[in-house]
Amino acid sequence: MSYQGIPVVDGRSAAERPVLAALDIGGTKIAGGLVGTDGTLHHQLQVPTPADGDRHELMTAVDHVLDDLARHPRWQQVRALGIGSAGPVDTARGTVSPVNIPGWREFPLRDETGRHPAAAHLPITLGGDAVAMTAAEHWQGAARPYRNALCLVVSTGVGAGLVLDGALHPGTTGNAGHLGHITVDYNGRPCPCGSRGCLEGLASGTAIARTAAELGWTPGPDGDTTAGAVARAAHDGDPLALAAFDHAARALAAGIAATATLVELDAAVIGGGVAKAGRVLFEPLARHLADYATLSFTRHLTLHPAHLGTDAGLIGAAALAREALSGQR
Amino acid sequence: MSYQGIPVVDGRSAAERPVLAALDIGGTKIAGGLVGTDGTLHHQLQVPTPADGDRHELMTAVDHVLDDLARHPRWQQVRALGIGSAGPVDTARGTVSPVNIPGWREFPLRDETGRHPAAAHLPITLGGDAVAMTAAEHWQGAARPYRNALCLVVSTGVGAGLVLDGALHPGTTGNAGHLGHITVDYNGRPCPCGSRGCLEGLASGTAIARTAAELGWTPGPDGDTTAGAVARAAHDGDPLALAAFDHAARALAAGIAATATLVELDAAVIGGGVAKAGRVLFEPLARHLADYATLSFTRHLTLHPAHLGTDAGLIGAAALAREALSGQR
Repeated sequence: MSYQGIPVVDGRSAAERPVLAALDIGGTKIAGGLVGTDGTLHHQLQVPTPADGDRHELMTAVDHVLDDLARHPRWQQVRALGIGSAGPVDTARGTVSPVNIPGWREFPLRDETGRHPAAAHLPITLGGDAVAMTAAEHWQGAARPYRNALCLVVSTGVGAGLVLDGALHPGTTGNAGHLGHITVDYNGRPCPCGSRGCLEGLASGTAIARTAAELGWTPGPDGDTTAGAVARAAHDGDPLALAAFDHAARALAAGIAATATLVELDAAVIGGGVAKAGRVLFEPLARHLADYATLSFTRHLTLHPAHLGTDAGLIGAAALAREALSGQR
Repeated sequence: MSYQGIPVVDGRSAAERPVLAALDIGGTKIAGGLVGTDGTLHHQLQVPTPADGDRHELMTAVDHVLDDLARHPRWQQVRALGIGSAGPVDTARGTVSPVNIPGWREFPLRDETGRHPAAAHLPITLGGDAVAMTAAEHWQGAARPYRNALCLVVSTGVGAGLVLDGALHPGTTGNAGHLGHITVDYNGRPCPCGSRGCLEGLASGTAIARTAAELGWTPGPDGDTTAGAVARAAHDGDPLALAAFDHAARALAAGIAATATLVELDAAVIGGGVAKAGRVLFEPLARHLADYATLSFTRHLTLHPAHLGTDAGLIGAAALAREALSGQR
């Protein structure tokens, strides 16, 4: 059995098979892992992100994670390192400027990681976190059967990545698939990005909570007003909570339909905290998608919840490393 | 000098170099041509489309065009045939269902063309007309310097095609780049396609003429109310005519920005009748694009008028044939 040319089960013993190293850099944690070429997560650790730290403190945290990985017996088998990072990223230059990590602006994360003695000999591939999640879902998750897919992360924001013609389409700088900032309401509200009517402002968890409040929804005794609380109320049949999800689902449907109309898609895979709402999101999403995706070549598009949960970041970073290893990038 | 591996000037005499055959099928004319691998149009003809004819009358018109091409001395040098057709098309199945040619619905144009005795030995590549225009602009026109480009035809409708990573991205069924039917106004007017707030309904020539009328613009003594007349009035400084173009340009900017945000673009190339309006379209378009394309990786996008005029259809069909010849598809 092989997948895109890399043997999943080969004749070598477990101690001889290549291993992929993975780093997942977010605003709250920095995770590291060792991943087999069959997608098995052999080892992982995480440290808190010193989010208010300067560029050196932040890099020291990354180095600590790499130190730990390099002490693992399987490090000798590591053939490539992948890094998924909160964005924006610039993969052409190897830099990151994560919104939630102000100490890094155009920080040369790829080169700085390559200075670690244990990583100096490895090919290093950098990608944005949503593109890494997309690579993970295409390698081991819900997008695996599809040659053309959009993989979304709907949480406090809306991120996404694209698989086109069977391969990841990260774009020239690794930012393709930025679905959260396409305009679906060209006369709509200004977005912090400077544009207006962006999908993220209508369909993120933040937007769902705001819409619910605007509709007059009131939280339960715990006072929780987050999208998660709105989702629980919607599951209990609260009409205002259901309306808030319906509104977000309609905007999301317009954005997914626009993507299918532009590049032709077979599937959309939806993960992230808001996707955990399940049917209160997916049912109105499927209904509205039928209204917006009307051209013949968009109508067969299928919707799927993401398969990979909290491990998607590390599996995705490993998937980026794997592409370098197989010479696909 | 070579372009994507095909020698433009080689040691062979003109009588020995390969030639590409091209068919351009539209609602008013069926054109045929013989095109050199350097993009030179050696020979062309056109016949009126029997638009109300049945499937056989229509195919007979195509066969007449092929008969003429096959009588040309250079036919012996033809190595591939490309067909650009009014859409929708389904290149996976080789069928066309042009909106303006009701006699053809899911008509197997590729196979029927292959039944012509002179074409039976040739590889035949089918594409939609906007994808063919995109192939033409990338091969010989304004998109030539760019690895990632959106090429638009703005006329009575809005069509487009995509070049990604240096290659045409026609999508699985040849319909990718359907910019006219992405939603930029998700609460907007219903579109004949079944969706709502589609770009075509806001930015086509038809939409510009309607917006001008809605704004109270009145035509000159000739009574001409088309977008062309609105463009002439705009050039003369008529504020309502300028406002109609500004409105269309804003919607177009939102759609181009959405595309750049989704796939990363270096350039947008704009052709079609409405693009002939020149600065009254391009000036507001550039201004609005700066408002909608705000993310760092979208800001370098440049706008260009299409280079190829009335020959774009045949050059584009030849460009499709050329891709088959070079084994790119």
